[in-house]
Amino acid sequence: MNERVLPPGVSAAAFSEAIDAFNSAIGKQWVFNDPEADLPSYRDPYAIVDENYFIPSAAIAPANVEEIQACLRIANKFRIPLWPISGGRNLAYGGPAPRLPGTMTLDLKRMDRIIEVNEEFGYALVEPGVTFFDLYKYLQDNKIKLWLDVPDPGWGSVMGTTLERGAGYTPYGDHFMMQCGMEVVLADGEVVRTGMGALPGNNTWQLFKHNFGPYLDGIFTQSNFGVVTKIGKWLMPEPPGYKPYLITFDHEDDIEPVVETLRPLKINMVVQNAATIRDLTVVAALNSTRSQYHDGDGPLPETVKKKIMADHDIGMWNFYGALYGPPTIMDAHWEIIKDAFSQVKSARFFFPEDRPRESDVLHHRGRTMAGIPTLTEFGFVNWVGGGGHIDFSPISPTTGKDALKQYKMVKHRANEKGFDYMGVFIIGWREMHHVFTLVFDRSSPEVKKNAHELFRILVDEAAESGYGEYRTHLEFMDQIAETYNWNDNALMRLNERLKDALDPNGILAPGKQGIWPQHLRKKKE
Amino acid sequence: MNERVLPPGVSAAAFSEAIDAFNSAIGKQWVFNDPEADLPSYRDPYAIVDENYFIPSAAIAPANVEEIQACLRIANKFRIPLWPISGGRNLAYGGPAPRLPGTMTLDLKRMDRIIEVNEEFGYALVEPGVTFFDLYKYLQDNKIKLWLDVPDPGWGSVMGTTLERGAGYTPYGDHFMMQCGMEVVLADGEVVRTGMGALPGNNTWQLFKHNFGPYLDGIFTQSNFGVVTKIGKWLMPEPPGYKPYLITFDHEDDIEPVVETLRPLKINMVVQNAATIRDLTVVAALNSTRSQYHDGDGPLPETVKKKIMADHDIGMWNFYGALYGPPTIMDAHWEIIKDAFSQVKSARFFFPEDRPRESDVLHHRGRTMAGIPTLTEFGFVNWVGGGGHIDFSPISPTTGKDALKQYKMVKHRANEKGFDYMGVFIIGWREMHHVFTLVFDRSSPEVKKNAHELFRILVDEAAESGYGEYRTHLEFMDQIAETYNWNDNALMRLNERLKDALDPNGILAPGKQGIWPQHLRKKKE
Repeated sequence: MNERVLPPGVSAAAFSEAIDAFNSAIGKQWVFNDPEADLPSYRDPYAIVDENYFIPSAAIAPANVEEIQACLRIANKFRIPLWPISGGRNLAYGGPAPRLPGTMTLDLKRMDRIIEVNEEFGYALVEPGVTFFDLYKYLQDNKIKLWLDVPDPGWGSVMGTTLERGAGYTPYGDHFMMQCGMEVVLADGEVVRTGMGALPGNNTWQLFKHNFGPYLDGIFTQSNFGVVTKIGKWLMPEPPGYKPYLITFDHEDDIEPVVETLRPLKINMVVQNAATIRDLTVVAALNSTRSQYHDGDGPLPETVKKKIMADHDIGMWNFYGALYGPPTIMDAHWEIIKDAFSQVKSARFFFPEDRPRESDVLHHRGRTMAGIPTLTEFGFVNWVGGGGHIDFSPISPTTGKDALKQYKMVKHRANEKGFDYMGVFIIGWREMHHVFTLVFDRSSPEVKKNAHELFRILVDEAAESGYGEYRTHLEFMDQIAETYNWNDNALMRLNERLKDALDPNGILAPGKQGIWPQHLRKKKE
Repeated sequence: MNERVLPPGVSAAAFSEAIDAFNSAIGKQWVFNDPEADLPSYRDPYAIVDENYFIPSAAIAPANVEEIQACLRIANKFRIPLWPISGGRNLAYGGPAPRLPGTMTLDLKRMDRIIEVNEEFGYALVEPGVTFFDLYKYLQDNKIKLWLDVPDPGWGSVMGTTLERGAGYTPYGDHFMMQCGMEVVLADGEVVRTGMGALPGNNTWQLFKHNFGPYLDGIFTQSNFGVVTKIGKWLMPEPPGYKPYLITFDHEDDIEPVVETLRPLKINMVVQNAATIRDLTVVAALNSTRSQYHDGDGPLPETVKKKIMADHDIGMWNFYGALYGPPTIMDAHWEIIKDAFSQVKSARFFFPEDRPRESDVLHHRGRTMAGIPTLTEFGFVNWVGGGGHIDFSPISPTTGKDALKQYKMVKHRANEKGFDYMGVFIIGWREMHHVFTLVFDRSSPEVKKNAHELFRILVDEAAESGYGEYRTHLEFMDQIAETYNWNDNALMRLNERLKDALDPNGILAPGKQGIWPQHLRKKKE
């Protein structure tokens, strides 16, 4: 039985009056008010705490900017907090669920227009509800020679991934860097266009990121300062040639020379894309399960790891990259890359033709690194039964020392709590997003408790070593925000000042990224 | 005789009391209070209006963050506006002069530490007073194999250029894109570190641009929301090979196919750097003067242009680019580039060895595109006598049609007012910064009046066609800000809201980029 959770400080009577107002503003069929029938899809599917904790009071789905403005008026009047979602599909970080129980979900899925795709300049202008699948289909249907940059499961919202500053795997892997121009509705209903969009009749809104004056787009990323309703994204022209590759390394400690080799290749853009180093488990998990290899609870024994490596013909570490460009340039890059990694003794080199099995992960990665959205890579969650996952994602310098240290730190703590290390290093220009995928059995309260404790420890231990997370699950937003506390939390106090100026009633996404409106900030005192 | 101009609303007595307070806070020798002796260097050297208009009341030069905080306390107390400058050397846009007459210059030149240069990761962390010359010398002295990206005259501040989002000419030509991590003092003295700098003991402040939560750095660019005291800049590793080139085109209308050819080359990163297309005048001006060729006042006759082209062996349009990388990759890029531009009939191709004269502009550009700071390219201001210049810098889509339209528009209006067209198209990723260098004789009030009228017309005419300027001289900040007026000036109202939240007394750089504090906002009503 699902009970309704009301937003704090809102009476049942006021809530009901607000629902009436929403009904008239956007139509009753777009106000999802039945906790039993309507709201389960707005929950965190991989709840690591009580699954009745991060739940909305209701959900509303306006059709356009005018309806969003109407909703904001009502929300301000009744002080009802709204949690805007584009797709809400990043299940590692809480999916569509709100941080503050009882927050109403502002579901933007109906705003799903692909407003423009420009092949000549390589960009798209989209609304929140457009998924990577939608945009991919549009490109295919219209034979437009542009490539997307997609996250592993391609079901996400193009805008959502960008606003959360997510990573992809092509040369355009830094989604926020490739964002150009926004339309934002502020909490009071004011509609702002950033960049050249502020100039009426302009012809460069999606060509130049800045306007005259301060560059504001960044404050609407990982934030609760506004509701973004349009976003420009740069898309990569289809390259004249493309070739994904895999380089495997046999030993745990190989991560050190591998990353040392990678740093100059990446800074010099010889490795052109946001390539990844994946540990054996996360690769094997796409085509097998833990129980096929091991019954015990503890860490996988070395012999088992060897068997997994042999069965899948992979390494302890697996570097998936890709070459893009005219053949001469691809060849030149490959020569340098192969030369460099050959210094690591255990290195073995593969192209797709060397791995004919269609299920081989290189084929999956080959599609992802070409910006083709799929769901196949999501299979890793089945490594253990009842599979859910949350991701622990610290930023690391691209050094072998840091990679090894983070790996050992995380693995040690994970094993202590009975979890396998499943990890990916996503190689950015001068840093790595180290993503530890904490896969857990959702059906076991004991396991969830352990996963929760593990995560808390990881955050603190990482912060002690100077590592901070770039993004996180709802449950850990406060804890992580508090690690960014230089000069007595100066950054958070600045965020709070902006929050109060832009959303004085605190109706937008309270608690997102640790930023609370004034009336809910009590715990800080 | 220079009279002191006081800030509006500040009495002589209060001002004098404030000066005493600044004297005690930072030492009398760092308070420049004599209008006659001290202040001329803080004026706009190329004043296009009355040279006594944009002048400060005094200047102060604090030594460090603590002294900045002390200055801000005094400024808040006495409501004395401060105009922060790092170097104040972009003379095209007003140099060090403040927008609001009587604003006190906050000269950060004494904060000139190069805090860190990291060769392995390719970055520098610097204070405001560090110039490109300083940083270049540091790299040379310490044999660090990193390249700078420099503006044409290399005397500017690394931080200043970045905060104003200036352009350079190497592959790292987008200065703000290559910025990573800031320290900012807010108007109330609060010190904030952005990005990973907010995490105590972090090891990624200059490696990853973002922190957990909103990305804030952008709001401190082209803005008056804070005083930036440290900035991280990514530097390019010295490439294994480098070769600048020049491609000339003979006809005015060639700009159309040239830009059409360029767009895909640039979007595909075959042209790797922020290359430029320069008209014949701006090239010839480095090694000759107008009077050598023509006595008359009107536009240069075609015969004269032909003579200039022949004498300098240049084209009507001159494309300066460079190849970077291992020889195979440079060769591959050059083959594509040469092939593409060969479609334009008048194209001629040159490497430095084809132009042995040391004074040839290709040698100058060759240094600039390799990040070597010089002053030689500043010679163009001597094209006419009494040379001053201001730059008109609209953003243009990278299309031939737009390039030709902007060129014709600007040239027509320039000629009408008796000026030559001297222009550069700086080629960004998907747009061009079209910079029309309006060179004028500073000694003639008549000429200055014409230049002023011309600029006003250009701004309006550009806006009518959907073009907006990315940056401008003090005198035109309001006019240009007002062209970014979509939805009843929503962007400016958002800027003003941020301004009021971060600097309620309005002491930081009133009027910069058209953003005024509340008490000076009257004209908007």
